[in-house]
Amino acid sequence: MQLKSQVEWALHCCAILGMLPPDRHLSAKALAEFHGVPKEYLSKALQSLSQAGVVHTTAGVAGGYRLARPAGELSFLDVVEAVEGRRSTFQCANIRANNPCRPADQCDDKPCAVARVMWDADAAWRASLAGVNLAGLAATLNDDLSRELLAASEKWVLDRAR
Amino acid sequence: MQLKSQVEWALHCCAILGMLPPDRHLSAKALAEFHGVPKEYLSKALQSLSQAGVVHTTAGVAGGYRLARPAGELSFLDVVEAVEGRRSTFQCANIRANNPCRPADQCDDKPCAVARVMWDADAAWRASLAGVNLAGLAATLNDDLSRELLAASEKWVLDRAR
Repeated sequence: MQLKSQVEWALHCCAILGMLPPDRHLSAKALAEFHGVPKEYLSKALQSLSQAGVVHTTAGVAGGYRLARPAGELSFLDVVEAVEGRRSTFQCANIRANNPCRPADQCDDKPCAVARVMWDADAAWRASLAGVNLAGLAATLNDDLSRELLAASEKWVLDRAR
Repeated sequence: MQLKSQVEWALHCCAILGMLPPDRHLSAKALAEFHGVPKEYLSKALQSLSQAGVVHTTAGVAGGYRLARPAGELSFLDVVEAVEGRRSTFQCANIRANNPCRPADQCDDKPCAVARVMWDADAAWRASLAGVNLAGLAATLNDDLSRELLAASEKWVLDRAR
C-alpha cells in the first residue's frame, strides 16, 4: 500500500507556499521548476489541494497558488487527505456475512471485529498526520537547512511571486 | 490509498485457523467456501501468509493451512505485512535535492523533514496493528458472536479439518 508521489509533491509545495507574503501567489510552473517535477502531474496535485480548500487559486495567465489558511492551521493530514481522499485505508466487505453457519436473518449490532482493529490503525495514522502542521514543518526546515539555502530559496520564491 | 481485499480475507482466514486443534489443517477450498470468496485469489493471500511464516502449509491433495505460531504470537501487523509487504506507505523521492538554489555538493545529515513526519505516521499505523494479536481477535469474536454461531462455525471447521 503506497501513497501517490503527488502526496510528497503537495507537501513540499505547501512548505514553499508558506514562504509567500499575504496575498502573493506562486505559479504551478514555478512550483514544478523548484521541485524538479513535471508540471502536468503537479497541476493535478495542486488542483486537489485547491478543491480541498488547502490552497487558494487565482486563475488566468498570471494565476497561481497560496495557502488558503495560516500554516499553523493546515496539518499534514489536510494535505494528505486532499490528494488521497478521506476514505479509510481499510474497506470492510463484511465477508463475515458469508459464513455458511450464520442464520439468514442475523443482524449484527457492531461492525466486524477485524474491521474495528483496521479502522483503529487507520485512525492512528491520521492522528499522527493531524499532529503536525505546516508551521511545525517550517520550524523543522529552519533547523535542518543552512541559513544560506533558506535565504536563497526564499529569494527564488519571492522573485517569482505574483 | 487502499489495502488489498486480500488483507481482509487473510485476517478472517487466520481467525478461522485459530480454531483448529494442533497439527490439524484446513484447505484453501474450505477457507474460500467459509468466507464466500474466490479460491484462486484467496490462494494468493494464503501463499503470502505462508511465505511470511504466518501460516504453515502442507502440500498435496490433502494439504492445507494452520497457524505457524500460537495466536497470541501473531499480530494483525504480521498478517497485513505478509500481504502488503513491509515497505513504508510513504516513499521519499528526495525531491528537496532538485531545489535550484541548492549547492551541487550539499550533503544532508538527516532525511527530508517531510519524509520524517510521513514515516512517523506509518510507524503509528504499524504500532497500532502490532498491538492486537489473533488471540485478542478471538476474544473479541467470542464477545461479539452468539454462542450458537461460534459453536456451529467451530463444528463446520472441525468437520473439514485434516
